[in-house]
Amino acid sequence: MSSFVRPLAVRAACPSLADNSGDLDRLIRAVREVLGDDRPVEAPLARVSILCRCFRGAGFQGTALVSDLGDRWLLTDFLAERPKTLMGVALDLGTTQLEATLVNMIDGQILARANRINDQIEYGSDILSRIHFATASRRLQKSLEPAFIDPGLVTLQEVIRDCLNNLLAELAAQADVEPGAIRALAVAGNTTMIHFLLGLDPYHLCREPYIPMLNQPGILRAEELRLALHPAAPVWIMPSIGSYFGGDLISGILASGLTDGDEPRMLIDVGTNAEVVVGNREWLIACAGAAGPALEGGVARMGMRAGPGAIDRVNIDPLRFELSYSTIGNVPARGICGSGLIDLVAALYLSRIIDIQGRLRDPVLESDPDRLAFMGDRVIESGSGRAFVVVPAAEASGDEPVLLEQLDLDALMRSKAAMYAILTTLLGQVGLEFSDLREICVAGAFGGHIDPQRAVTLGMLPDLDLSVYRGIGNSSLQGAERVLCEGAARRACAEIVARITYVELNVNQEFMIRFSGSRFIPHTDPSLFPSVPFYNENS
Amino acid sequence: MSSFVRPLAVRAACPSLADNSGDLDRLIRAVREVLGDDRPVEAPLARVSILCRCFRGAGFQGTALVSDLGDRWLLTDFLAERPKTLMGVALDLGTTQLEATLVNMIDGQILARANRINDQIEYGSDILSRIHFATASRRLQKSLEPAFIDPGLVTLQEVIRDCLNNLLAELAAQADVEPGAIRALAVAGNTTMIHFLLGLDPYHLCREPYIPMLNQPGILRAEELRLALHPAAPVWIMPSIGSYFGGDLISGILASGLTDGDEPRMLIDVGTNAEVVVGNREWLIACAGAAGPALEGGVARMGMRAGPGAIDRVNIDPLRFELSYSTIGNVPARGICGSGLIDLVAALYLSRIIDIQGRLRDPVLESDPDRLAFMGDRVIESGSGRAFVVVPAAEASGDEPVLLEQLDLDALMRSKAAMYAILTTLLGQVGLEFSDLREICVAGAFGGHIDPQRAVTLGMLPDLDLSVYRGIGNSSLQGAERVLCEGAARRACAEIVARITYVELNVNQEFMIRFSGSRFIPHTDPSLFPSVPFYNENS
Repeated sequence: MSSFVRPLAVRAACPSLADNSGDLDRLIRAVREVLGDDRPVEAPLARVSILCRCFRGAGFQGTALVSDLGDRWLLTDFLAERPKTLMGVALDLGTTQLEATLVNMIDGQILARANRINDQIEYGSDILSRIHFATASRRLQKSLEPAFIDPGLVTLQEVIRDCLNNLLAELAAQADVEPGAIRALAVAGNTTMIHFLLGLDPYHLCREPYIPMLNQPGILRAEELRLALHPAAPVWIMPSIGSYFGGDLISGILASGLTDGDEPRMLIDVGTNAEVVVGNREWLIACAGAAGPALEGGVARMGMRAGPGAIDRVNIDPLRFELSYSTIGNVPARGICGSGLIDLVAALYLSRIIDIQGRLRDPVLESDPDRLAFMGDRVIESGSGRAFVVVPAAEASGDEPVLLEQLDLDALMRSKAAMYAILTTLLGQVGLEFSDLREICVAGAFGGHIDPQRAVTLGMLPDLDLSVYRGIGNSSLQGAERVLCEGAARRACAEIVARITYVELNVNQEFMIRFSGSRFIPHTDPSLFPSVPFYNENS
Repeated sequence: MSSFVRPLAVRAACPSLADNSGDLDRLIRAVREVLGDDRPVEAPLARVSILCRCFRGAGFQGTALVSDLGDRWLLTDFLAERPKTLMGVALDLGTTQLEATLVNMIDGQILARANRINDQIEYGSDILSRIHFATASRRLQKSLEPAFIDPGLVTLQEVIRDCLNNLLAELAAQADVEPGAIRALAVAGNTTMIHFLLGLDPYHLCREPYIPMLNQPGILRAEELRLALHPAAPVWIMPSIGSYFGGDLISGILASGLTDGDEPRMLIDVGTNAEVVVGNREWLIACAGAAGPALEGGVARMGMRAGPGAIDRVNIDPLRFELSYSTIGNVPARGICGSGLIDLVAALYLSRIIDIQGRLRDPVLESDPDRLAFMGDRVIESGSGRAFVVVPAAEASGDEPVLLEQLDLDALMRSKAAMYAILTTLLGQVGLEFSDLREICVAGAFGGHIDPQRAVTLGMLPDLDLSVYRGIGNSSLQGAERVLCEGAARRACAEIVARITYVELNVNQEFMIRFSGSRFIPHTDPSLFPSVPFYNENS
C-alpha cells in the first residue's frame, strides 16, 4: 500500500485522568505506532479541530489518512470507516490544454477523465507572450521592491486556478461526488505553467541563463493554492530541471519506462516544445527547447489542435492523384492538426508536388498530365504566395477552404529539421546510434496520432523498423497518475532529476550544423533514409 | 549562535548556462552547505518570490535568516547586509493580562516592554466563563458536524489576535520600527488561552478528564495566525502538559532554573491558578488546578490587579493600632491587590482582629481598650455581614471606602489553605520535607510583590528561613525570552515536558485532608510554624 494518501487503521486508548494527552497528540501517537518510523507526523493547524472531533466521534479508532512528505508525514483526515475509494486527480497542466483523470488511489482505477482549454490563452497563445503579460508592470519598475507583485501575474494565477477548479468540479460531477472528496492532486506541467500556478515571478525564465525561481516545489496543500478540493489535500508538483525542461517531461520519463531497463530507450515528447530524453536505468540525457515551432496546431495558419473538425489523416494516391482525408468527429474540416500535417506533407513529397526543400513546385513546369491536372486544381496563388488547397471551400466548414501555404510548409520544414537534429545531437552526446535504441516512445498529442512511417518519410524521425516506435499518448498525465498510486513512482521522480544530464541546444554548435543538414526531405544525406525515395529534381 | 531566528552568511555561485538551478534551489543549497546537516531547508510558498529577488538583488551572497524547526529548517528571509539586530517578541499570554518584551535575539538585549489587559475579559473574567462563551453554539448542536465552527470561538480568537497585534504595534513603536521588522514570537500561555489563539475548540478542556485538543502546537508561522509581525516569522508556542498545566508554567520552569542542579527546588506560580513544581535536573513533579481562587485580584470584592491605586502593602502596629498602607503609584486607593491582601490579613491576625479561623472578631467581646477603639472605627456591619474598613471613604478614590468583607476573608482562607495543602501534598508524593528544598521560587505578579514573611504568618507558605524564598517575577515571560535567544532553552522545553509527572489534585484524597488541616492561621498544627505566634482564643 503506497498511495499518495494512505489509509491507516489506528486504535488509541481512550482519554482518562491517567492519560490526558491532547486529542491530536493521542492521534499522532497512535499513527506513529502504526507507521513505525521516526519521522514526525504533523497536521495543518486549520485541520486540528476537525481531526480531533472526527477522532473523538469515532471512539478513538478508525482510519487516519496520511501522506508521506519525505522528511515527515502529513495527517489530513480521520474516518470512522475504512474507505473503499480515495480519490486523487492527476493533471497534465499544459500551456494549451489541461487534461486530468480522477483516480481511485487504492486500486489505481480511473473513475473519470476531462480536459479543458487553458483559459490563459486569452492572455497569450504561447508561453513567451504570457510571461510578457505577467511581467509587464514589473518591467516598468525602476527599482524592483522584493515584495512587488505584478498584477499581470496575479491575473494569470487566478485564471489558471479558476480553470483548474472548473476541471476538478467537472471530474467530481462525473463521479457524482463533491470536489471536497478529492483528497490529492498530482500536477505535471512545464516550468512556466508551474510558476503561474504558484504565483512565482516568471521574469528570468525566458532570459539567459533561463533561471526558474524554483525547480522543486515539493508537496504543497490545496488550501495554500486555494484549490477547490479537500483543503488539506497534498498537492504533488513534479520537479523540473530548468526553464525549458519541466515536470511534464519528468512525468513522461516516469511513465515511459525509460529508466526500467539496461538497453537505452528514447522518449520524444512534442507539445509546445520538442523535448527528447535518452537513457536507461543508469543514465539519462535530455534536451528540449526552442528548437523550432511545434506540431500542436501552432505551425500552420490552418493548424489546430486535435479536436472536432481537425484533419488528422491525409493521403494522396501518387499514381491516380486522388486526395483522401479524415477529420476528427467526421465533421466538415476546419483545419489540420499535427498528425494530418505530417501525413499531408509526406504525401505531397511522395507525389512530388513539393520538392526536397519542401517548396510547392510550379505547375507550369509540370510535364506529367495527371499531376498537372491535380496541381491545377490544388496549387493556387494566395495573398502570401503559393498555397495548396487541402479541402476546397465547398466541402469545408464555414465555406472556408483549408489551405497549406508555402509559409506553413517552411515552418514545418524547420520543425522537422529541428526534431531530427535534436535526436542526432543528443545521441551524439552519448556516442550512440539510432540502431542502439531498444524503443522510441512518442508521447504527447503528437505521439497519440502520428503515423511514424510518414514522419520517417519527412526525415523527422529516423528510418528504423517501425516496431521500434511506440505511441504512448499523454505520458505527462500518466506519470502523474502513477505518482498518486505508487510510492516507487514518487521516489523515482527525485532519482530522475538527480540523474539527468541536460544539454542546452540553444548554444550548441553541433546542433546548428545538424539542423542545416536536416532541411531537406528526407535529408541532405539520403543514405540515412534508405526506405524513403529521394526525388532530387536537380539530379 | 543559537537564536530562534539565526543569521547565516551564505555565498552562492552565480547562475549560468552550466548551472541553471532555480534561484531558491540555489539559495537552499548554499544554506545547507553552511548549516552542514542533513535536514531539509524549506521556504513558505508565499515567500519564494521575495526570497529569490532579495537573493538576486544581493548578488547571490548575503545573510539568510533561518530557524530550526527540529526536523527541518525554515528559511524566512535574505538580507544583503548582516543585521546587528534581529527582533523577536516574548509574550506571556495571560488570562487577565498580556505582557511582552521586544528582544534583540542576537545579544539578548531587551529593547522594549509593554503590557495590555486581555480584551477577552469583556466576554468573561475567567477561563471557565470564556470557554462557556466560546462553546455556547456548539452546545446547542444536536449532532456536531466535525467542521462546525462556533461563532463564539471565532470572536474570542479575533479579540485575542487584535489585542496581541496592538501589543506588537506598541512594542514596535517603542523601538521605532514597523511591526513587520519583528521576526519571531515566543508565546507562553495557559492551555485555554493557546486554544483561543489557535482557534481550537476548548469544549473538553473543562470537562473530565480535561483533554486539550493538543498540548504540542510546535512552531507555526505568523501568517498562519494572521499576526501582524513579519509574515514568515516563526511562532514558538510553549508546549503544555494538560488543561490545567499550560505552557506558561513550562516556560516558568525553564526560567526558574529548577532543572539546573541536583538539589530539589520548588517553583510556585500563582496566576489565575496556583501551579507548583518540584524537581531537579533529573525529575520534575507538578500539580496545578482549581485549588481555590487565586490572588490575582479575583479573591476579594475590592480585589484588583497590581496597578495604580491598588494597595500593595499594609501594616497594623499591633501595640498602637495604627494602620499604614501604600498604593501603587501613590494615588488614592481603589482596591487591594494580592500582596496587599496577604499583608492585611497577616496584620489583622497579628493584631488579633481576626481569629485563627480568619473570622473578624466581634468588637463587643473586646477587652483591650486600644484594640476596641480601633475596631470600633474599622469593623462595621455591611450588607453581607461583618467587614473591615481598610481605607475610609474620605481617603479613598471616588469616596468609596476600601472594605475587606468576611466573605473575602473566607475566600482568602480557602486560598491559603489550598496553597499549603498543594505544597505539602506535592512534596509528600516524592517523600521530601520542606527543609530538603534548596530554594523556593515564587513567580507571577504574586511573586514579584509578596512579602514571604507575611505569607508564612498566614500559613500559606512554609515556615522556613526567608533566604530560601526568591521572587522571580514573570517567569513565564522570562522563559519565552530565553527561547528566543538560546537553542538550549528550546530543546529544554521538550525535555521538561517529557520528564514531568503531573499530579491531579482534584481527585486526590490526601490533598483534601491536608486542605482541611490548613484552614487555620497558621495551621491546625502550630508546631509546623514555630516563628508564628498562635493565638487560639479557645485555649
